[in-house]
Amino acid sequence: MSQTRTAATFAPPVMEARRWLEGVAFPTDRPLINVSQAAPVDPPPLALRKAIAEFAVTEDAAHLYGPVLGNPNLRAELAEQIGQHYDAILAPENVAITSGCNQAFAAAISAITDQGDEVILPTPWYFNHKMWLDMAGVHAVDLKTGDDLLPDPEAARALITDKTRAISLVTPNNPGGVEYPAALVRAFYELARETGLRLLVDETYRDFDSRGGPPHDLFSQPGWEDTLVHLYSFSKSYRLTGHRVGAIATSAALLSEVEKFLDTVAICPGQIGQFAALWGMQNLSQWVSGERDEILDRRAAISEQLPRLTDKGWRLLGLGAYFAYLEHPFDIPSDQLARRMVPEAGVLLLPGTMFMPADDPAGKRQVRVAFANLDRAGIGQLFDRLQALPF
Amino acid sequence: MSQTRTAATFAPPVMEARRWLEGVAFPTDRPLINVSQAAPVDPPPLALRKAIAEFAVTEDAAHLYGPVLGNPNLRAELAEQIGQHYDAILAPENVAITSGCNQAFAAAISAITDQGDEVILPTPWYFNHKMWLDMAGVHAVDLKTGDDLLPDPEAARALITDKTRAISLVTPNNPGGVEYPAALVRAFYELARETGLRLLVDETYRDFDSRGGPPHDLFSQPGWEDTLVHLYSFSKSYRLTGHRVGAIATSAALLSEVEKFLDTVAICPGQIGQFAALWGMQNLSQWVSGERDEILDRRAAISEQLPRLTDKGWRLLGLGAYFAYLEHPFDIPSDQLARRMVPEAGVLLLPGTMFMPADDPAGKRQVRVAFANLDRAGIGQLFDRLQALPF
Repeated sequence: MSQTRTAATFAPPVMEARRWLEGVAFPTDRPLINVSQAAPVDPPPLALRKAIAEFAVTEDAAHLYGPVLGNPNLRAELAEQIGQHYDAILAPENVAITSGCNQAFAAAISAITDQGDEVILPTPWYFNHKMWLDMAGVHAVDLKTGDDLLPDPEAARALITDKTRAISLVTPNNPGGVEYPAALVRAFYELARETGLRLLVDETYRDFDSRGGPPHDLFSQPGWEDTLVHLYSFSKSYRLTGHRVGAIATSAALLSEVEKFLDTVAICPGQIGQFAALWGMQNLSQWVSGERDEILDRRAAISEQLPRLTDKGWRLLGLGAYFAYLEHPFDIPSDQLARRMVPEAGVLLLPGTMFMPADDPAGKRQVRVAFANLDRAGIGQLFDRLQALPF
Repeated sequence: MSQTRTAATFAPPVMEARRWLEGVAFPTDRPLINVSQAAPVDPPPLALRKAIAEFAVTEDAAHLYGPVLGNPNLRAELAEQIGQHYDAILAPENVAITSGCNQAFAAAISAITDQGDEVILPTPWYFNHKMWLDMAGVHAVDLKTGDDLLPDPEAARALITDKTRAISLVTPNNPGGVEYPAALVRAFYELARETGLRLLVDETYRDFDSRGGPPHDLFSQPGWEDTLVHLYSFSKSYRLTGHRVGAIATSAALLSEVEKFLDTVAICPGQIGQFAALWGMQNLSQWVSGERDEILDRRAAISEQLPRLTDKGWRLLGLGAYFAYLEHPFDIPSDQLARRMVPEAGVLLLPGTMFMPADDPAGKRQVRVAFANLDRAGIGQLFDRLQALPF
């Protein structure tokens, strides 16, 4: 086959990892612990499911095409709530709804880059960002992070060329879990503004940040919308992963470019998901707050259990949002280790090799644990199995 | 702004046309007749809406991530029903579900082309196909059609170069309405097979074809999946436009490439829409048949009214599915004519200029009427207004 866009990238990691399970039997008293995907396994709260059921019967619009950039009432509510969260004022025309946050990224990249352009991407990266850049013909320029997983603005500056169009961050980070300090995010913003780049900030895990108050002050900067492209998702906060509802906040001018992409690849975001997201924002703030408390408690459980692994030579590199990012002590590359863990430990996690280029040796020593679906007991069992690894 | 992917194409035509309505008041006794978009304005039948409501409360999976290529039961049912429709046998692994048929096209193109490649596209084209090719950096090679709007395989053959990767057809055609004869579709298939190209056939309007029996015999050809990429949509047949559910049928090998694109741009198709599509296929065949009868009756009404326009110099170029495609008699380019029709006739339709390159003079003389939402009385009123145009 000749070269194609999709041939330029790798297979979806989550689907690939799922295939490792084929033909492996897990004893009923020792079921698989699946920490491979960052997704709720429970449905939305019953009140939201009932609201969706009501919309299905009473709202014709919940089944029909809507505006490409999303429903006006949802855009307005999200603008309002972003404003509250970040202590700023946003206009509805600076906010658009997308069919999930991956699509928001793809649309933004299509609106700011062309074939052969460059985007600076800290490693470890979120693999779907890397995949989209590959398929878009955009060179992802690796910005290596150190043991704290935090990217360095001055290191980024040194990577800027006349082909660079954007720097793309994820905070709280996937896969690293780390919450980028407000000053660090601001420094990247200043660098991007000064050099005429866009700064993409994917804040899918915003609602699970352990810090109180606004996580950064970018929305308060005059003319923020000419530099910042903020990405958000309703999937985790309201457990609406299957409805595909995300968002993007930036300038109205850029959104009118984004509109071309979204029209062509989606026509409009799923309507009933938009109704659900609006209802959620209007009725579930207390519930989301409780979800955050639960995730933070699970994170605390990881911290408490950690010495059992560090005693064995593991190191924790990042912890936050849905993720723990670890360095393993074994003399086995992480991609082989992860596969062997399935039959040998009953654990499915993703190796660091899925989050960086194949030639980066760091990936071979790292693994991502998406712990959000494990309660305290489950986390204890996971650590039992990791602690007992015989390698 | 430097060149970007989205800057390489035009604004979404349906959204642009909608902006022509801004500031125009329509008398209550003479409301706007909107024949601009090919979309049902009524919701799905109540039984389907109730089924969706039931899923919302009882099926956790209706809210959560599913497989990238769609739910196995929906893939299996669609494979079965495509087989029945085309008198062939399909395996579920040859069928994938997408977030609407536009996305199926985008995914397929990404899996078979690279920057600078060419795809042969008959004009008038479906604008979102042209837009995606533009954004993908693929050159849409115009295959001009004559007054019957049917593309000529030998003319296509003459356009093939070493950069050509596919020929893309839409039948029944959008915007032209014409149903491509089975022999014509077969001739394109043979051309594509012989020259090592893919043949994309978008059959979104399949269920409204006026002909009985299989519309073509491609699925019966040995090894069809190595040449054919069939695209389908649940949007029109089940009035699920707002749920974004489409499909693609081709080789399992190509679908594993498509999977990379879909994972990155959508993660999975909307789940509740997939549940709805499956329920619809299992329970609404009689209802869809009635919808087809209604559309065919409206089409007959267009034919009956037609002499009122041909007397004024109009010509019908194509009629079928949701569309009538007409040549107007006025000494005004269609893009200007369409704008003036809004205030002067209370009619919103799309000009031929939106379906072909700006330098093709044919577009200036043509308009598309998406008549599916007009009943017989509405069609009569539309013809009254077109007949009375003072230009």
